[in-house]
Amino acid sequence: MYKLYYSPASASMVVHQALLEIGADHELELVELAAGGQRDASYLKLNPLGVVPTLIIDGKPMFESAAILMALADRHPQAGLAPLPGSAERNDWYQWIVFLSNALASTYRFWFYPASLGGDELTPPERAALQAKIEGIWDKLDAHLGEHGPFLLGANFSAADLLLIMLMRWSRNMPRTALEWPALNRFATLMRTRPSWKELYQREGLTDWTGW
Amino acid sequence: MYKLYYSPASASMVVHQALLEIGADHELELVELAAGGQRDASYLKLNPLGVVPTLIIDGKPMFESAAILMALADRHPQAGLAPLPGSAERNDWYQWIVFLSNALASTYRFWFYPASLGGDELTPPERAALQAKIEGIWDKLDAHLGEHGPFLLGANFSAADLLLIMLMRWSRNMPRTALEWPALNRFATLMRTRPSWKELYQREGLTDWTGW
Repeated sequence: MYKLYYSPASASMVVHQALLEIGADHELELVELAAGGQRDASYLKLNPLGVVPTLIIDGKPMFESAAILMALADRHPQAGLAPLPGSAERNDWYQWIVFLSNALASTYRFWFYPASLGGDELTPPERAALQAKIEGIWDKLDAHLGEHGPFLLGANFSAADLLLIMLMRWSRNMPRTALEWPALNRFATLMRTRPSWKELYQREGLTDWTGW
Repeated sequence: MYKLYYSPASASMVVHQALLEIGADHELELVELAAGGQRDASYLKLNPLGVVPTLIIDGKPMFESAAILMALADRHPQAGLAPLPGSAERNDWYQWIVFLSNALASTYRFWFYPASLGGDELTPPERAALQAKIEGIWDKLDAHLGEHGPFLLGANFSAADLLLIMLMRWSRNMPRTALEWPALNRFATLMRTRPSWKELYQREGLTDWTGW
């Protein structure tokens, strides 16, 4: 039994969808971000960073979505979230998850939270630079998927793909959405027909960028 | 046999030190960053991001330092770089490596490369915000090590510690270095007495922030 502290459409989406893919028993606990629930003393005891998600595993809280995907993959080897440790495919899997987390998710943070750069809103140079950085990442991912896809690891789905589709979704209100890149667009079509995607949308009450 | 494309004192340090900790046969190939070697067509074929490090594993190139640490830990379980997959300690290990990569390394990138925010140098608000972000991370890591140290996983050294000491080193010319935090300072003393640290310094020709 897991307990997921989440907020709809936030970074917790990828962990929520992984739990659905596994078919693991789990309880959901809403964190009201608009009301500052992530900064409550009781929540900070679970997650000193004051962000969602937190996943309780065997009574112990864990944070960082990309790391939680790795923990879940190890705990549920039959779920097909990751290749076996020690294989070349596993190395690729680590590489793409870390890349998405380190290069893309971190850049979005600055895009969505201008205060993290010291202002009320992004300055025009900041905005242009961050947009170029994100679009440059779509270029690289599109080239990779075009040559080695349809999934990040090739023929086989993995949890790295769950992280990518969530991060693609975050581009939906940007000047250019990730769907404008052809191989990423084909990837999104594949990913948004998975039953876990529809179930995730229903449970989190999401209505945009459905794909259906 | 591994082949590491590296540049002294860059992000490749942590992979270089991990290879020394393992005692693994490896060849070093210098990438001349100042001369733009990371953007040579031949290098971009190995690493489309155009950064160091790249590690060649069984003839296949891999990038993203944090991911390379995970791959090396899986390939050399006897080296003590990581707890066993499926354990609570392994989950912690993933968490700290991803946190260091996602929150800290990515923020340094903006600190060291002002062009990534669209300017020739950081504006005062950008500088203040990024410094506050990095210092806030030292606060959290110091609190964690003070309560649960001396290493990130407690009593036992792991590859997560190699990543942390490298990232602490990068603060050496900042207004406040990570050594000003007491538990981080004790951690640095421990880490900089490891034989692999001295060997790394000799091989890369480093002379500052030695710790001896």
